[in-house]
Amino acid sequence: MNTSQIKAGIVGATGYTGQELLRLLVRHPDVSVHAVTSRREAGKAVAGLFTNLRGHLDLSFVEPDAAALDTCDVVFFATPNGTAMTMVPELIAKGVKVIDLSADFRIKDVATWSKWYGMEHACPDLLDSAVYGLPEVNRQQIKNASVVANPGCYPTAVQLGFLPLVQNSLVDPGRLIADCKSGVSGAGRTAVENFLLCEASESMKAYKIDGHRHLPEITQGLNLASSEPVSLTFMPHLTPMIRGIQASLYATLTDTTVDLQTLFEDTYSDEPFVDVLEAGQSPDTRSVRGTNNLQLSVCRPQDGDTVVVFAAEDNLVKGAAGQAIQNMNIIFGLNEISGLEIVAALP
Amino acid sequence: MNTSQIKAGIVGATGYTGQELLRLLVRHPDVSVHAVTSRREAGKAVAGLFTNLRGHLDLSFVEPDAAALDTCDVVFFATPNGTAMTMVPELIAKGVKVIDLSADFRIKDVATWSKWYGMEHACPDLLDSAVYGLPEVNRQQIKNASVVANPGCYPTAVQLGFLPLVQNSLVDPGRLIADCKSGVSGAGRTAVENFLLCEASESMKAYKIDGHRHLPEITQGLNLASSEPVSLTFMPHLTPMIRGIQASLYATLTDTTVDLQTLFEDTYSDEPFVDVLEAGQSPDTRSVRGTNNLQLSVCRPQDGDTVVVFAAEDNLVKGAAGQAIQNMNIIFGLNEISGLEIVAALP
Amino acid sequence: MNTSQIKAGIVGATGYTGQELLRLLVRHPDVSVHAVTSRREAGKAVAGLFTNLRGHLDLSFVEPDAAALDTCDVVFFATPNGTAMTMVPELIAKGVKVIDLSADFRIKDVATWSKWYGMEHACPDLLDSAVYGLPEVNRQQIKNASVVANPGCYPTAVQLGFLPLVQNSLVDPGRLIADCKSGVSGAGRTAVENFLLCEASESMKAYKIDGHRHLPEITQGLNLASSEPVSLTFMPHLTPMIRGIQASLYATLTDTTVDLQTLFEDTYSDEPFVDVLEAGQSPDTRSVRGTNNLQLSVCRPQDGDTVVVFAAEDNLVKGAAGQAIQNMNIIFGLNEISGLEIVAALP
Amino acid sequence: MNTSQIKAGIVGATGYTGQELLRLLVRHPDVSVHAVTSRREAGKAVAGLFTNLRGHLDLSFVEPDAAALDTCDVVFFATPNGTAMTMVPELIAKGVKVIDLSADFRIKDVATWSKWYGMEHACPDLLDSAVYGLPEVNRQQIKNASVVANPGCYPTAVQLGFLPLVQNSLVDPGRLIADCKSGVSGAGRTAVENFLLCEASESMKAYKIDGHRHLPEITQGLNLASSEPVSLTFMPHLTPMIRGIQASLYATLTDTTVDLQTLFEDTYSDEPFVDVLEAGQSPDTRSVRGTNNLQLSVCRPQDGDTVVVFAAEDNLVKGAAGQAIQNMNIIFGLNEISGLEIVAALP
Repeated sequence: MNTSQIKAGIVGATGYTGQELLRLLVRHPDVSVHAVTSRREAGKAVAGLFTNLRGHLDLSFVEPDAAALDTCDVVFFATPNGTAMTMVPELIAKGVKVIDLSADFRIKDVATWSKWYGMEHACPDLLDSAVYGLPEVNRQQIKNASVVANPGCYPTAVQLGFLPLVQNSLVDPGRLIADCKSGVSGAGRTAVENFLLCEASESMKAYKIDGHRHLPEITQGLNLASSEPVSLTFMPHLTPMIRGIQASLYATLTDTTVDLQTLFEDTYSDEPFVDVLEAGQSPDTRSVRGTNNLQLSVCRPQDGDTVVVFAAEDNLVKGAAGQAIQNMNIIFGLNEISGLEIVAALP
Repeated sequence: MNTSQIKAGIVGATGYTGQELLRLLVRHPDVSVHAVTSRREAGKAVAGLFTNLRGHLDLSFVEPDAAALDTCDVVFFATPNGTAMTMVPELIAKGVKVIDLSADFRIKDVATWSKWYGMEHACPDLLDSAVYGLPEVNRQQIKNASVVANPGCYPTAVQLGFLPLVQNSLVDPGRLIADCKSGVSGAGRTAVENFLLCEASESMKAYKIDGHRHLPEITQGLNLASSEPVSLTFMPHLTPMIRGIQASLYATLTDTTVDLQTLFEDTYSDEPFVDVLEAGQSPDTRSVRGTNNLQLSVCRPQDGDTVVVFAAEDNLVKGAAGQAIQNMNIIFGLNEISGLEIVAALP
Repeated sequence: MNTSQIKAGIVGATGYTGQELLRLLVRHPDVSVHAVTSRREAGKAVAGLFTNLRGHLDLSFVEPDAAALDTCDVVFFATPNGTAMTMVPELIAKGVKVIDLSADFRIKDVATWSKWYGMEHACPDLLDSAVYGLPEVNRQQIKNASVVANPGCYPTAVQLGFLPLVQNSLVDPGRLIADCKSGVSGAGRTAVENFLLCEASESMKAYKIDGHRHLPEITQGLNLASSEPVSLTFMPHLTPMIRGIQASLYATLTDTTVDLQTLFEDTYSDEPFVDVLEAGQSPDTRSVRGTNNLQLSVCRPQDGDTVVVFAAEDNLVKGAAGQAIQNMNIIFGLNEISGLEIVAALP
Repeated sequence: MNTSQIKAGIVGATGYTGQELLRLLVRHPDVSVHAVTSRREAGKAVAGLFTNLRGHLDLSFVEPDAAALDTCDVVFFATPNGTAMTMVPELIAKGVKVIDLSADFRIKDVATWSKWYGMEHACPDLLDSAVYGLPEVNRQQIKNASVVANPGCYPTAVQLGFLPLVQNSLVDPGRLIADCKSGVSGAGRTAVENFLLCEASESMKAYKIDGHRHLPEITQGLNLASSEPVSLTFMPHLTPMIRGIQASLYATLTDTTVDLQTLFEDTYSDEPFVDVLEAGQSPDTRSVRGTNNLQLSVCRPQDGDTVVVFAAEDNLVKGAAGQAIQNMNIIFGLNEISGLEIVAALP
């Protein structure tokens, strides 16, 4: 281990985003994994539970207490909603940087947060200074953040897909539609019947049709970029695959003369992880599987006034752990792509 | 075999819709399978190729010529587009009823047909009398049809989903969106790399984003029901499963006071194969797999003016072979559900 | 409902074998579903939980007590091991026939049962009279049984595959190998992480390598047919699909001159649900999916002295619910195939 | 590009092993991809066809002729059988190292090769000097090889699983059984109906039951290690997943007192890519997916005289492209694990 390496801790490492952080961090050239916590598995070797890590990590799970974590340079929370907010104040008081992959710090308005997440917020005073970790939007603020609220999987894809249109006032903001399809890993490593192979495989359906928690997060982000309030219909679908989000975004153009292809290419020309495909293509999730890439394409079917944007990402990477590491790279002044230079394995 | 049974022929029985016709017809109480044609497999036992039919069918494939077919009471075409139109005139001249599962007779306007299907039509004079076989719309005309144009898989789901709204002028007809997800069997039994397990599994993408052939078919149907011309954005997605279509349909309500649940339930209360789920549910494809059922639900997210209709069907049954048999039942005055009383196997 | 129909009860109908019993019984021409019990779901409409049954069954779940069940003609137990044995004595005292899909009555030796199932047996005195419900072996005894011990999924495939060889003393009984692959539904509808789509899909592994409970059941059955004690290595594998068991059975021939194809065809020539494929073929699970068929084939690779038998069945049908209904048909003197004349849906 | 990097060419890069070579080589720190050939795609950008390579490779496919290849340091053949043998002599004459992923140089006996591969061999005089590229067996010879015959996917797993037993004469060599399960990518990127998602998904079957071409390759390898001739029953099964081989190997112990766990651990203690799991575990394919690892475990069920070895690998990595790069690393004196330090992505 290089003594100058960044010491990283992971809280809640037995879930899918935690596993993915481990996969990426054990190969990150500038990071050493310093503490991995799990109440349920404390004392067991991490590589005993996750045999893909055999030979790559020689640590055991520890209890999630401060002693284990406050010697880290950065702590990632891969916990259920409601956990990070109880532990973060103590950590940042000791100078530890926090990147929270849960939703605890994503919504600025505490009443909205409580309504959608069904609990009181434990440290509302941190909501203002927490930085929403979408690097394509907030790269400068992330550099100095103590707490990064890592975006949700759907919000990453939907915001990056809509932003070129919304921030340039090219579409009717009151009539946005996001039809999103997610692999089952989006539900987390939760032993629930709906997500058994026998129930989730060979089937397709919309879910949470009365409102998904990612709706206010997306709306908050688009409103910051829009001159007028946005109104979004967001419909998530459970898709019979392990990883991947495919989003098809529909809006009504207020100007049908704009060169949409150029608009999208120019918007993201400097972004290392946003890739605009050639006109006529549409991204598939397998081509970004395991990577931090978001692929986009845009079209105007039948030359009408409806614009359709397609986005594909890996929900566990650009939609979670990969973006978290991208944020860490930014905070610590590393090359932003460090540890994330991965090629998707096809097939 | 009951001598009074209906003698059925199938042209092109080696594809997926042909296989599905065989599965259903060999168990239909009022039908005997009389001729099964395949140029490629002529002379071979059908149950030798499709071992699921062992013990259920003792026939061999024959060449697809008139001699084999004109002693049938009804002939199903499960052929690629462009074949049925060359064989149908001779068959109906001999009094054989024809149910065409291809697209040859679906579009009334021959120029539109030629534009989308890329060939000249071989018998445009039959287009007028051919009946579009959507029983929920055209039951009376189907009874006396010589040629039934069996609807496409997407058009069945999208039309039946939108019709209650469109025919009652409850939505803006100029801004309809159909985001549709289909299992891979929708592509047919075609040996193409895109549909290999290794390419189509564990991935999701939109396809034919510049225009799918089912668009003019859907638009034609909705226009017949609408007081104003409809404009539809139809976006199909290849979904990593074998069977099933899930459609999420979006429209803008012109009247937000209408009771959508009652509207849908009332519209389809007498339909044996259209099932409106309770408010708050959304249909999944596995619950209709292998059956002729279309399940629908409707909601108005966040009580806004966007209505969303969800439809789920088995693309090979209600979207093809099952609907064809439903049409046959209507033509021959049988119980409309005969041979189609199937319960989906879960899981 | 026909008043002369057999009144069937199902205990534990929320698991996969219970669901499958429901699918088959609601379409069985001679049966009416009379009582469906579930502690967890008591009071709820069955078709509300399993929407595939909408329109096919108008019953609610009830508590699993005798009052609900003792007016049935036959009661199926689709319960975890250990439940049926506590309820069966009371039911058979009232003349109710019992078909137990769990393992409670499969093993004749109570010590062996207790060792493998980890509990005391609640009614060991019934073990003698309970009939092991493999119709191909015990058809006559099943006719008069009060309690049928419905075979396990693996034991059905492995016994029917080995029996022609073992009962004719054609192989070394001390060196039998059964390499078996099962779809995930074999694990039941249990919310356990291992069986989540994200964990069980896209992977293959052997499990219970130190001994699976079906081993003593298979050995017991083969020993009854063998002149010398059998010794079996039985290795189950978790396969990334919903349904199906594929078994590859290996043995050493003591006589390499026997015509294996004829042996197998002759053994099962009168069996409605055992189908011996032509020489050179091997059965796939999809061709029997949803059906009560077991497909077999046999070969002798490189003309050596190792014989390989391949068996394919649907673990939930011939391996559970279908075989249970076959047993019911035998008990009540119905046509043995009644309600089971199903064609597998391909693809 | 580092000018001292090894210049690699890939012939036939549009198949799955070619794609996998590209994935691994574009990230290999000591290699630059110099020429990528494909007759069918010549002139097109590689990253246009395989969008996972966008940003990682800026080359176009070229025609597979010598001019494109003889400036390479090493050329990988990812071609169908029969191609490499026609091009290799010219390349090695120019000092280019060749690693052939096809079967052209795997079998030393040319008559056996011709019998199993159905063609005459184009350069039988090279068979002697070609080195069979199983590093765990032939590491020293590989260092100086001009032509490496990269092993087949099944032969890698089966040989490495059986070798500790066979080379120590611990089992009856005349009664080996290998029951192997492969993901569909083992069939290559071939547009054949059997490998369509609709045909290969949700099913399991044995195939090539009369003899698979990997049988003589495995037998040749085991015979070299065995004091007596081996006789193997090798049965491959098509498994409904994209990647992975799981092999269950059965043999009869001649000595049941040996400590099998220690034997296996000792045999492979210095091997970077062979990982012996703890006693009681069995490897799953997902934990090695995308990596060059082979995981093994061994057990003796019911303490009998049958030993079972379990092996899991990624058929496209340790079974093809990864092993090819491991061989390249050995030839060029690089760290053997260079470019192959990959952690499997779970889930």
